[in-house]
Amino acid sequence: MFARAALAQGCALQFPVQSNTDSVHLLRAADIAEMSLGLTAPHANSGCVIARGPHVVGEGFFYGQGFKSAELQAVERAGEHAQGGTAYLNLEPADWLGDDSAISSLIQAGVSRVVVGIRHPFEHLQGRGITALRHAGLNVDVAGEDLVDSRGNIAVALKSCRVVNAPLLYKAAYKIPFSLLKYAMTLDGKIAASSGHAAWVSGELSRARVFRTRAQSDAVIVGGNTVRRDNPSLTTRNEEGHQPVRIVMSRGLDLPEKANLWDVSKTPTIVMTQEGSSKEFQKMLTARGVEVVEFEFLTPRRVMEYCYTRGFLQIIWECGGLLSAPAISSGVIHKVLAFIAPKIVGGVLAPTPVGELGMVQMTQALNLSEVEFEKVGPDMLVSGYLQPLPDLPFDHTYSGQTKGHLTFA
Amino acid sequence: MFARAALAQGCALQFPVQSNTDSVHLLRAADIAEMSLGLTAPHANSGCVIARGPHVVGEGFFYGQGFKSAELQAVERAGEHAQGGTAYLNLEPADWLGDDSAISSLIQAGVSRVVVGIRHPFEHLQGRGITALRHAGLNVDVAGEDLVDSRGNIAVALKSCRVVNAPLLYKAAYKIPFSLLKYAMTLDGKIAASSGHAAWVSGELSRARVFRTRAQSDAVIVGGNTVRRDNPSLTTRNEEGHQPVRIVMSRGLDLPEKANLWDVSKTPTIVMTQEGSSKEFQKMLTARGVEVVEFEFLTPRRVMEYCYTRGFLQIIWECGGLLSAPAISSGVIHKVLAFIAPKIVGGVLAPTPVGELGMVQMTQALNLSEVEFEKVGPDMLVSGYLQPLPDLPFDHTYSGQTKGHLTFA
Repeated sequence: MFARAALAQGCALQFPVQSNTDSVHLLRAADIAEMSLGLTAPHANSGCVIARGPHVVGEGFFYGQGFKSAELQAVERAGEHAQGGTAYLNLEPADWLGDDSAISSLIQAGVSRVVVGIRHPFEHLQGRGITALRHAGLNVDVAGEDLVDSRGNIAVALKSCRVVNAPLLYKAAYKIPFSLLKYAMTLDGKIAASSGHAAWVSGELSRARVFRTRAQSDAVIVGGNTVRRDNPSLTTRNEEGHQPVRIVMSRGLDLPEKANLWDVSKTPTIVMTQEGSSKEFQKMLTARGVEVVEFEFLTPRRVMEYCYTRGFLQIIWECGGLLSAPAISSGVIHKVLAFIAPKIVGGVLAPTPVGELGMVQMTQALNLSEVEFEKVGPDMLVSGYLQPLPDLPFDHTYSGQTKGHLTFA
Repeated sequence: MFARAALAQGCALQFPVQSNTDSVHLLRAADIAEMSLGLTAPHANSGCVIARGPHVVGEGFFYGQGFKSAELQAVERAGEHAQGGTAYLNLEPADWLGDDSAISSLIQAGVSRVVVGIRHPFEHLQGRGITALRHAGLNVDVAGEDLVDSRGNIAVALKSCRVVNAPLLYKAAYKIPFSLLKYAMTLDGKIAASSGHAAWVSGELSRARVFRTRAQSDAVIVGGNTVRRDNPSLTTRNEEGHQPVRIVMSRGLDLPEKANLWDVSKTPTIVMTQEGSSKEFQKMLTARGVEVVEFEFLTPRRVMEYCYTRGFLQIIWECGGLLSAPAISSGVIHKVLAFIAPKIVGGVLAPTPVGELGMVQMTQALNLSEVEFEKVGPDMLVSGYLQPLPDLPFDHTYSGQTKGHLTFA
C-alpha cells in the first residue's frame, strides 16, 4: 500500500515511467510482497518481479512457511522469458532452512541481472545471497548502494522495501518484535467515558482497519484492566484468516474467571504473569487450554524479549494507559496508531491513552517521526514512529538497552 | 477560503464554469466578503460582484463600521457597465442605521437582476432589502428559493454564503455570539504536561493560525487557571491589526496581581466575576484600566448573553478543561477547533481539553458535525460544529434554553 501511495502521490506524475524502469519494478516487488503481511513469521515478506525492460514476464510473492519462495514462483511464471531478464527483489534472497530455491532458481533460469531492495537484516544471512548470485555470474545491483537516483525514485522504492519488512528490520536491530501501540480516542483525548465504557470510540471503518492490522500481527497484547473492563475477544472479523495470539499481561492474576479470552477454540491465549501469582488461577487457565508463562519480573521489555524468542515478528498493543506508559518508557513501542473520533465525551476521571511517563515539561514530549494522517470513515488515523525505522547495516553489538532519554522505574 | 476550497475540490472540475455563471459569481461574492472576517462587528460580512454574463465588471466588500457598503463600491467600480448587469450578494442588503446605499446604489446604477445568497438573519431586516429591490423593478433571485441547481453548485455557493456569515447566523438564532472552543493537545490527549507546562504543544504554523482566528474574533475568553498557569497575552502577532478584547472569567478573583492581561495599553481586558469577590482586587484592576463586570451568577451562558448585548459577533474560548466543560454543557460552544500535535507526553495528572460533562457511556458523547481535517505544519487541525449551522428562517421565539440532552449543574 505504501508503495502505491508513494507512487500515486508524486513520482508517477513527476517522472515518466520509461526512464525509471528499475524503480517501478522494484516498487512492484515491494507491493506484492506486502500481500502476505503478517502471514510469513518468522520469515520475511519477499516479492520477485522478473522483467525484460519495461515488460514484466513473471512475478510471485512468498505466502508463508511451507510455500514456494517468491523467486521460484516468478521464474516458473516467466518460463523461457526469464532468460536474460532482470529480477527485482524487495529483499536479498536467503537460503533458509535448506531451501535454496530463492537463489538457485534465478541462476538456473538464466536471469542476467538482479536488483535488490534491501540486504537481509539478519547478520548470518546478510550479503550471502548477493555474493552467491555474483559468484554465479549474475550482475547484482543493490538499491542505495549500486543504484542511486538523484531524482529520488530509487529512494522511494527503497523506502517501500524497508517499510514492507519493517518488522524484520526492527527485530534485527532491537532483538524484539516490531511493536505497534494502537488506541482510539475522542477529540478530547479520552479512550473511554468516566465509567470505563468504551464501546465504541471509533467508527466501523476504523474498527475494520484494526481487524486488518491484527490479522497482520503475530500477537495482540492487553493488560488485566482491559480484560476486566471490556472483556474483549481480540480476534479479527475474518474467522478463516490469520488470527494473532492473544497475550494478557497480569502481575497479580486479578482476572475474571469467565472471559472471552479464555476460550481458545479459535486462537490461543497466553497469560503472562509474575512469580508469586495465584497457582490456583494458573491451573484454572491451563485446564482451559490457556498457556501461562511466569516471569521473575513482568515488564514490557521482558515480555518482548520472550516474544522475540518465540519468533513473533509483529505485535500490536491494544492496552490502556496503565500499560502503554511503561511500554513506551521502556522503549519497546516502535510505532503508534491513534484513531481520533470527532466527538467529545469529557470526564475528569475518563482514561486517556498514555499514563505516567514522568514528564513535567511539554518540551520533554516524545515526537513521532514520519507521521502520516489518514481519514478512516469519520475518524482520523494518525500514525508515526517512536523509534525510527532502522537503517542498514545495523550495529550488531546493540546492547538491548533502551535508546533515548527515557528511564522506566 | 471555504468557497475557494469547495470550488477547487469538486465543482470546478465537475461542472464547466459557463453553465454555472450564477454559482461562480455568488461564490466569488462570499469569497471577497470573507476578506474582512472579524472586522465588521456588529455588522455582517458583505460582498458584491456585478457581472454581465460571465464577465465581472465591478466588485467590493464591506471593510467595517464607517466604510462604504460592498454594493456601493461595486457600483462605483463598474461605472456604466453596471447598467443591465446582475449583482451577486452573499447576503441580503440592509438599510443599516440610515445608510441605505447598499440598496439604493444598485437601483440607481440600473442593475437589472440581483442574486442573493442568504436572507438577512436578523428578524427586523429579513426580507426588507429583497422587497425594496423588487419594488424598484429589479429581478431578485434568492439561492435555495428561486435558484435551485440539481447538480449541487448553487448549494455549494449557498453554503459558502452561510459559512462566511456563520457568526451572524448563530447570533440571530441563539441570541449569543458565535463561539469557538480552541485547544491544542498531544496525540495522547494532553493540553499540558503534568506540571501544567504547556509551551508549546502545537507547532509554529498552528500558533500562527490561532493568531489569525483571534484577529477574526471580537473577544477571547480564558479562566483563572489559565491566567495563573500560563500568564498569556492573548494578542495576535500583528500589532497593527485587529485585536480581540481579552475576557477572564473568575468567580473568586483568585488571580495574580501581576499578569500580562492587566496591561491594557494595546487592547482592553474585561474581568468577569461574581458578586462577593474581592472589592479590593476589583479596585486594583480598574485602577490599571481593566474593566470589571460583576454577575449575580458567573456562568458561561450569562457571560455569552452579556457579550451578545455588547455586540460581539465571534468569541474564541481558549480556556482549559475546567471552563470548557461547563461552556460545552450549557450549549454555548458552537464549534470546536482542535490542534493535535504528533507527540506523546503522558501524565496521569496531565490536564485534558474537556473536564467533567457527566457522561458515563461512550454513546452519550457529543458528535461534531461537518467535520474538517486540515494539516497545519506538523499538526492536524480537526474542526467541527457542536451546534449545527442554523438554517433560515429561524424560529424567532427561540427561548434561549440549551437544546439537546445536556444539563449543567
